[in-house]
Amino acid sequence: MNADTRGGSRRLILDAIRRAGRIARIDLARATGISQATITTITADMLRQGLIEEVTAEGHSRRGRPRVDLALRGAAHVVVGVKVAHRSLSIALMDFAGILIGEHHAALPVPVMPACDLVQVLADAVDAAARSIGLTRADITAVGVALAGIVDASRGFVYWSPSLTDRNVPFSDLTGAALGLPVFVDNDANLVAMAEQLFGQGRDVSDFIVVTIENGVGMGIVLNGALYRGARGCGAEFGHTKVQLDGALCRCGQRGCLEAYVADYALLREASVQQTGSPITVGDVLDAARAGDATAQSIVNRAGRMFAMGLANIVNIFDPQLIILAGERMQSDHLYAQDVMADLERQIVQIDLPPPRVVIHRWGDLMWARGAAAYAIDHVADMSLRGGGRNAA
Amino acid sequence: MNADTRGGSRRLILDAIRRAGRIARIDLARATGISQATITTITADMLRQGLIEEVTAEGHSRRGRPRVDLALRGAAHVVVGVKVAHRSLSIALMDFAGILIGEHHAALPVPVMPACDLVQVLADAVDAAARSIGLTRADITAVGVALAGIVDASRGFVYWSPSLTDRNVPFSDLTGAALGLPVFVDNDANLVAMAEQLFGQGRDVSDFIVVTIENGVGMGIVLNGALYRGARGCGAEFGHTKVQLDGALCRCGQRGCLEAYVADYALLREASVQQTGSPITVGDVLDAARAGDATAQSIVNRAGRMFAMGLANIVNIFDPQLIILAGERMQSDHLYAQDVMADLERQIVQIDLPPPRVVIHRWGDLMWARGAAAYAIDHVADMSLRGGGRNAA
Repeated sequence: MNADTRGGSRRLILDAIRRAGRIARIDLARATGISQATITTITADMLRQGLIEEVTAEGHSRRGRPRVDLALRGAAHVVVGVKVAHRSLSIALMDFAGILIGEHHAALPVPVMPACDLVQVLADAVDAAARSIGLTRADITAVGVALAGIVDASRGFVYWSPSLTDRNVPFSDLTGAALGLPVFVDNDANLVAMAEQLFGQGRDVSDFIVVTIENGVGMGIVLNGALYRGARGCGAEFGHTKVQLDGALCRCGQRGCLEAYVADYALLREASVQQTGSPITVGDVLDAARAGDATAQSIVNRAGRMFAMGLANIVNIFDPQLIILAGERMQSDHLYAQDVMADLERQIVQIDLPPPRVVIHRWGDLMWARGAAAYAIDHVADMSLRGGGRNAA
Repeated sequence: MNADTRGGSRRLILDAIRRAGRIARIDLARATGISQATITTITADMLRQGLIEEVTAEGHSRRGRPRVDLALRGAAHVVVGVKVAHRSLSIALMDFAGILIGEHHAALPVPVMPACDLVQVLADAVDAAARSIGLTRADITAVGVALAGIVDASRGFVYWSPSLTDRNVPFSDLTGAALGLPVFVDNDANLVAMAEQLFGQGRDVSDFIVVTIENGVGMGIVLNGALYRGARGCGAEFGHTKVQLDGALCRCGQRGCLEAYVADYALLREASVQQTGSPITVGDVLDAARAGDATAQSIVNRAGRMFAMGLANIVNIFDPQLIILAGERMQSDHLYAQDVMADLERQIVQIDLPPPRVVIHRWGDLMWARGAAAYAIDHVADMSLRGGGRNAA
């Protein structure tokens, strides 16, 4: 077995243990298709490294000895996941087994700032988060960051983000240097998709799409069990697909983007036409629509119809098994109301297959941060397996 | 090495020989990452099976003996590829090395017919095509069919096709039974993408998109060197993505589909508003636009702008390296004129990466049939490798 195959097997085994939670060696062989002899060798290695541990299971093996399962060893690593939102940072602290061991929130002084400022705010917040559970920065193995915008995750490079005044920022390198820790950044919706895959509705689904609607519109695509980021790392950009030729002005500067019809700012812009001077929130618009206000209903209905149309386009292209609508905005019902779903089903290609299942997942802010932490764990697993390959042929 | 790995290696080797045209064993080891010993064993097997042959190369090996390359043995198999078009069948006859050894065209009595009738027309045309190069049906190893519509290629099942009056047709099984040959059917644009990958502009590109515009709008997506068919086999449906809420009526029965703005029938429908009774073709509309007719220009310009918008959406989602615009309609220039391309570049997400390259490939009708033949070769290779695995552990 060459080193590549060996590394691949190690990762397969670790992922299978993560998926199972706890699993006997014999079932691990069955789940991965790897021989029992190889399973024994590789898991012995992982036990020595402290990545996994033996857990005595209830019940007995066929030979009458107590059954012993393998599980990830949570204490092996602590990672931090950070979501950079409009006005705040949300931070999740997670152990290597994916258990949430702490959370922390910090205000952002302004929603858009130079990269060097954001890096400093991030470093301070990571320290504060570690302190909140009695740790220091030195106890953290890695940091994952979820950022809105166009991110080349493989290089940790941010082409553009609504949170940054500068473009083309080597974000992972900058933040990593400031923290003295490995930092991994990805588009925030991609990391929600990762959270759904590991902890949420996407656990046993190989192909699904996550759509988030808050201040912007995000999409994460999982194909064949892996995040799909586009051929050059900058794809899966749903919010700026066009739904109207020469349509509404988007904050990206273009016209007719889906986001310009369904994001929070788009609803508020419409509502401002008849505004009487009192401050207004998206919640106000939705309340007014529910209370029967005709203008508010018109605003909300168009947003819903545009959303259904954009989503139908995605279904026609990817034909996914499952669509997960995730995020805070899903707390309110305008974008997934029954008639929006009926609209969606009417606009996809009509064949004798059931339409994809659509589920609503009302995570709060921490969803994003958990995804970012999961992304950090993913990299830590890779780093540990590479480092622990000393016995590999 | 288990049977699966062995089968995978055999396929890797065969594909590498196909890509190279002719290649020495030592270079094959380098290209595939497979050990020279395994290369020697597996290629010996393939030589015995008659799938490949030795070709004495010019120049000499380092030991002074004449260098011997390996190449596919064209005579190993003859396959037939059929494109079912609006009014005709185009047929390509191809040998196992991918060399076109004959072509044939047959008229269709009507553009839409019951599946059992189309199967009969297909069987007659395959026989006529074989006769045209002095062969009979018995000399054919397999048949590939390119059909517009929603096709689950893995099952050879056609959910819907504009060429068929019936839905949900087990097309490969029906046609296979009538011909007494293995038949493989796929969506026609997918097979154009396969032709581009094997013979055309996509040869050294791992991620690209092919768009065809003729009577309908088709798309084929190649990701990581493989055709992407959507999670359930029915994705990559570009022509029926919506570009306008409650827009123009499409022949699929829905409103606002891209196809309803850019396909031949859409241009003719627009032109018919001012038609004076004389028959009119898409060529007439394009000629009039070029000659300065304001109505014709308005029709053609809108088609171009809608096309740019639909294409920009695809770019935002897949971020491909290359877009190939293929087909007969690309002979005329309205859909890829400079301002359409400028429109496209304006509507994609603006980051400091060059936009994807767009190339025009003006294949004729036989393009589709060659893709279908290539698809048949692909399956024949699989069949041969499975059949020839008698020495595999």
